[in-house]
Amino acid sequence: MVNFKVPVGISNRHIHLSQENTDVLFGAGYTLTKMKDLSQPGQFACEETVTIIGPKGTISGVRILGPTRKEAQLELSATDTFKVGIKPPVRDSGKLEGTPGIEIEGPKGCVQIDHGVIIAARHIHMTPDDAAKYSLKDGDHVRVSVPGLRGGVFEHVLVRVNASYALDMHIDTDEGNAFSIVNGQQLEVLLD
Amino acid sequence: MVNFKVPVGISNRHIHLSQENTDVLFGAGYTLTKMKDLSQPGQFACEETVTIIGPKGTISGVRILGPTRKEAQLELSATDTFKVGIKPPVRDSGKLEGTPGIEIEGPKGCVQIDHGVIIAARHIHMTPDDAAKYSLKDGDHVRVSVPGLRGGVFEHVLVRVNASYALDMHIDTDEGNAFSIVNGQQLEVLLD
Repeated sequence: MVNFKVPVGISNRHIHLSQENTDVLFGAGYTLTKMKDLSQPGQFACEETVTIIGPKGTISGVRILGPTRKEAQLELSATDTFKVGIKPPVRDSGKLEGTPGIEIEGPKGCVQIDHGVIIAARHIHMTPDDAAKYSLKDGDHVRVSVPGLRGGVFEHVLVRVNASYALDMHIDTDEGNAFSIVNGQQLEVLLD
Repeated sequence: MVNFKVPVGISNRHIHLSQENTDVLFGAGYTLTKMKDLSQPGQFACEETVTIIGPKGTISGVRILGPTRKEAQLELSATDTFKVGIKPPVRDSGKLEGTPGIEIEGPKGCVQIDHGVIIAARHIHMTPDDAAKYSLKDGDHVRVSVPGLRGGVFEHVLVRVNASYALDMHIDTDEGNAFSIVNGQQLEVLLD
């Protein structure tokens, strides 16, 4: 098989909320305000941010990503988790069983979630057409090469396939910083 | 050649000072206080810390490592550099030409260094005996494999050989966090 390139997006800490959470944090019936579209179609960064309050520290200005989901999901870097004092697992988005919760503070109220905090596992979004082209399927894992002085290889990168996706690899700030990666850089997926 | 294991130490941000710096920051003739020995013989963490003041932010509690050197060297993670607002290069220890400076604040005074801030390049310390055993020499670069869900390969890991060293790999907190590495973990050096 032939290797191929993917653009990489570096995800800073962020949170997905339910409408119920949004009502408590920002006021009943509140609608989140789109600030900018993200690489994945339909997903957007909101003007609104929240503060997260852990047993050892707080982080303010945590960006909300829309649209709202059925339940809250807070994605932190490992660096962040030391600051707030919780130990979430490395997980794929949406796999929240057994994950720790945290207190979330908005301008109108606070929400204590009892689960939903993860360190997001690195992954590549692609369409079924992309997947077919590269002989990959949803749930596969691939290796991705990073060039440069601080280069190396990311192993176990999850492939996520959905017609609503656009081709994009997502890593967190620790992974970006460790390998001196810049947003939008093209990385090589190793299929051989 | 046969692969071999090295223990890894995760270096948090820290600073090396000259005696002249120490005099200004802590008072004339001040002697740094050893808190604990480090893995490299003769090197130690000090009780004393300083605050670093960059154009965009400050970080307090930056640990001093002793003994004093001929000039200051501040080692930050890339994550730290965004917080303080400077852009140091990834460098081997001691190679400080063209690096940015920063303001350092101690209990008795401040020092503005005009160079000396780096993001430390990952490296492995070893003795000449170790180097001979693995057919390596000072200045070589090797690949190091990291196991686990967030595993992968670090490429371009510098080999540093000196009779005063102990076998130990040094990475920074971004690299440790990106790959879920714990202090003291054994990693495999790939020679094949």
